[in-house]
Amino acid sequence: MSIYKTRCETAQSLMKQQDLDYLFVAPSADMYYFTGYSGHITERLTLLVIPAHDEIKMLLPAFEAHRLESLATFFTLTTWMETDNPYEHLLDLLGGSANIAIRVGVSDDQWARFLLGFQNNLPQAKFVISSIVTGQLRIGKDDEEIELLREANQRNDSAFSEFVKSPMIGKTEKELQHELSGLMLEHGQESIAFANPYSGPNSSSPHHTPTDRIVEAGDAVLFDFGGTYKGYYSDTSRTVVIDHLPKEFEHVYNVVLEAQQAAIDAICPGVPVGEIDTIARTYISNAGFGDYFPHRVGHGVGLNEHEPPYLTGDNQQPLQEGMCFSVEPGIYLSGRFGVRIEDTLLVTATGSERLSNCTRELLVC
Amino acid sequence: MSIYKTRCETAQSLMKQQDLDYLFVAPSADMYYFTGYSGHITERLTLLVIPAHDEIKMLLPAFEAHRLESLATFFTLTTWMETDNPYEHLLDLLGGSANIAIRVGVSDDQWARFLLGFQNNLPQAKFVISSIVTGQLRIGKDDEEIELLREANQRNDSAFSEFVKSPMIGKTEKELQHELSGLMLEHGQESIAFANPYSGPNSSSPHHTPTDRIVEAGDAVLFDFGGTYKGYYSDTSRTVVIDHLPKEFEHVYNVVLEAQQAAIDAICPGVPVGEIDTIARTYISNAGFGDYFPHRVGHGVGLNEHEPPYLTGDNQQPLQEGMCFSVEPGIYLSGRFGVRIEDTLLVTATGSERLSNCTRELLVC
Repeated sequence: MSIYKTRCETAQSLMKQQDLDYLFVAPSADMYYFTGYSGHITERLTLLVIPAHDEIKMLLPAFEAHRLESLATFFTLTTWMETDNPYEHLLDLLGGSANIAIRVGVSDDQWARFLLGFQNNLPQAKFVISSIVTGQLRIGKDDEEIELLREANQRNDSAFSEFVKSPMIGKTEKELQHELSGLMLEHGQESIAFANPYSGPNSSSPHHTPTDRIVEAGDAVLFDFGGTYKGYYSDTSRTVVIDHLPKEFEHVYNVVLEAQQAAIDAICPGVPVGEIDTIARTYISNAGFGDYFPHRVGHGVGLNEHEPPYLTGDNQQPLQEGMCFSVEPGIYLSGRFGVRIEDTLLVTATGSERLSNCTRELLVC
Repeated sequence: MSIYKTRCETAQSLMKQQDLDYLFVAPSADMYYFTGYSGHITERLTLLVIPAHDEIKMLLPAFEAHRLESLATFFTLTTWMETDNPYEHLLDLLGGSANIAIRVGVSDDQWARFLLGFQNNLPQAKFVISSIVTGQLRIGKDDEEIELLREANQRNDSAFSEFVKSPMIGKTEKELQHELSGLMLEHGQESIAFANPYSGPNSSSPHHTPTDRIVEAGDAVLFDFGGTYKGYYSDTSRTVVIDHLPKEFEHVYNVVLEAQQAAIDAICPGVPVGEIDTIARTYISNAGFGDYFPHRVGHGVGLNEHEPPYLTGDNQQPLQEGMCFSVEPGIYLSGRFGVRIEDTLLVTATGSERLSNCTRELLVC
């Protein structure tokens, strides 16, 4: 039996527990997880319809149907033409009546235009986010997924290890972005999700878009970079300095590094997810930088760049084997510099495995 | 006055006509159009709130607020911390009561998780798609936008003109994708949206994802490629042949080219949008290929890759000066080859201007 069919059947079991009659799956990581097909995220309705008790169907534009020929082994295709109303096809597919009192999980990232379309065409239906099922299902990675996550991270590692051998001084953030992106593709990533250098004062922003700023001696440069391999994301951050260390940098760097290590050392099945955030945050606060660590310590990584579990202090969910997430504490000193060190961790039976492994030594480039 | 403030004020006027109390604008092309800030499309709520009669506000994660410092000149910022409930901040921002009977336009591409969040937290509110306002506003491009669209298309043109000078035979679709992407960046596109070669029988699919298939003599190769320049998209398709012409190819190519020209010749303010599709479709049908042209003839192009107007035969909206859209007829002969020729057109006072201009001559590469 195909892995996709098995995943759909597991979803159907979970749907019964959650009292859901249908999942409406948008073109998304969920659709890929269930079918091997990502779909095309556009204004044209493409929808995988998983009923709790009935046959699975995919509704899609007629001219894209052939793309699913080899995948549609355990679901059937319903197609619509360019001037059709796709909601009429959806109603047919649900049995023909608009007045059915069904409970439907819609993809968290389904577009509002479609959710409003569903609500207008199915006025008796109740809609909730589908991650009450898909989140549960996807949060624990299976062996094949873990291998792909390892691969994606190794490709990131080797690209960055080569990247830091070339001089950065005198280049713009955008030039460094293009260089790192190119190396990530050369090292086998299938797509670039982000390859962002934040230089000098820009590194004191946790999120930043690369600019024409020229990297100069004494800058810190924070790199946040990730790509996908067979759909699975990598996500790593490293901070280097150019030519020489800015004042106080080494101390801040070591606080972040030790906070990350303390958090990673605590990872073990059964520990509440939020504890990982609390440990890193306490370490940084005790070092006097509590006000300069404004974001959660991490997020799940898989077929999405960000997915459950979200590592905020209030998350009481216990860690479980097969969870995969970033641990990325940071300290950002406004107008001066920032440091973030981010790795992707896998929860194992007894602790964790670091999937990203490029050096965390303080590099002077 | 800033262009962004003017756009928001125009939106506020249109909102009154549409009886909308608020626009809830997601991180999207709309947010960029209104503020110059795209936002970060994630599970963290970022929302531009435009009331019809009151001050404009932006709700966003606290650690991203500094990114808006220079832009937030005509709107105020409301920030939330990682463990806050952002909907509580949204309610405060709307005056504190959950039971307000407001009519709200939400971004068409707002995620369902947020729309459901709005609906659960504002049970008396009525939600509709915001494009009843933003679509009207963005469908006619102003002079600055037109200049950026020209630039984006010229960069696409020059990249492809250089690309076709190199031999393709023996390379995989993925290799050609990387080569073309690299050239698009070198020629000044700021990001790659897609640079997809469909080779041999794969070209008979209107949508295709590049594979490891090796390009060989006698193949048709259909390229669909576009990037962004300062947020504005280009979108071009060209079909070439490798080494020699497949049987019947030249005839099909000429039918597509002539259908495109007939459609373009008809563009003029006042003509119904659907007429452009009908003209291309009739031409192709009369040539005996009506069953092999399964998609609409085009779509609007701007800050989104696909946006209004959609060129389907049933669209009665009149063309207006400043509209910008693709004209892309195609003929797809299953298992053999496909031909699509796509250009981006601007509606002028008296006709149209072709924004993309790389050669449409039949190239043997």
